[in-house]
Amino acid sequence: MNKIEHIGIAVKDLEKANKLYAQLFGEPHYKVEEVASEGVNTSFFKVGENKIELLEATNNNSAIAKFIEKKGEGIHHIAFDVSDIEKEILRLKSEGFKIINEKPKQGADNKLVAFLHPKSTNGVLIELCQEII
Amino acid sequence: MNKIEHIGIAVKDLEKANKLYAQLFGEPHYKVEEVASEGVNTSFFKVGENKIELLEATNNNSAIAKFIEKKGEGIHHIAFDVSDIEKEILRLKSEGFKIINEKPKQGADNKLVAFLHPKSTNGVLIELCQEII
Repeated sequence: MNKIEHIGIAVKDLEKANKLYAQLFGEPHYKVEEVASEGVNTSFFKVGENKIELLEATNNNSAIAKFIEKKGEGIHHIAFDVSDIEKEILRLKSEGFKIINEKPKQGADNKLVAFLHPKSTNGVLIELCQEII
Repeated sequence: MNKIEHIGIAVKDLEKANKLYAQLFGEPHYKVEEVASEGVNTSFFKVGENKIELLEATNNNSAIAKFIEKKGEGIHHIAFDVSDIEKEILRLKSEGFKIINEKPKQGADNKLVAFLHPKSTNGVLIELCQEII
């Protein structure tokens, strides 16, 4: 794990949340991106060497819609930057962690991503991500 | 906001969680600290320029005990490093954010801290912290 790449926050209304977080950080988001395969619209803010990703569901089957329905808006996941995601998945699997995506998939922000199941990490949804070069 | 100082994770059993997060990061925690005023035991892990803080309640009145009872284990707060916490509290208050601690208090890890109410930040409990020099 090289660093925290970003923290994902589930929001109901991306436009409103973008305004609010711009006030919080004193700077607007620097990009928006739709990830159609995940049913989400995202926006990104830069804070130091990390990012904050706001996530809004684009349909009711989106994981973000289900998360908000169950728990309300709030912190959804922590993403850690890794150099070799396939190697890291194998390492964590051998340590007993439950991996949701044994084969990494395309995520937002030009990344290969894989999630660990919160049941094996004290209720924290952890994303591994590797920059696609 | 200079950077994400740490992410706080509420856990039921700090000793077990320390072992798990050491496996996750490939490195053990580098310190433990009790904050008696908050009713918590904490441990810290370093990831890049950020920290992960695990929090275990030491009594049933602790905010961490209540959080776990209501929501289960998981991500509890995000802490942002600020240079001048009193100035930042005034700025955010004037922007309409609801501040829980208008007067900063002593937190873990040699910090002055203040929290924003999650109701004004899309369900995210945000901590401001300033290193005590």
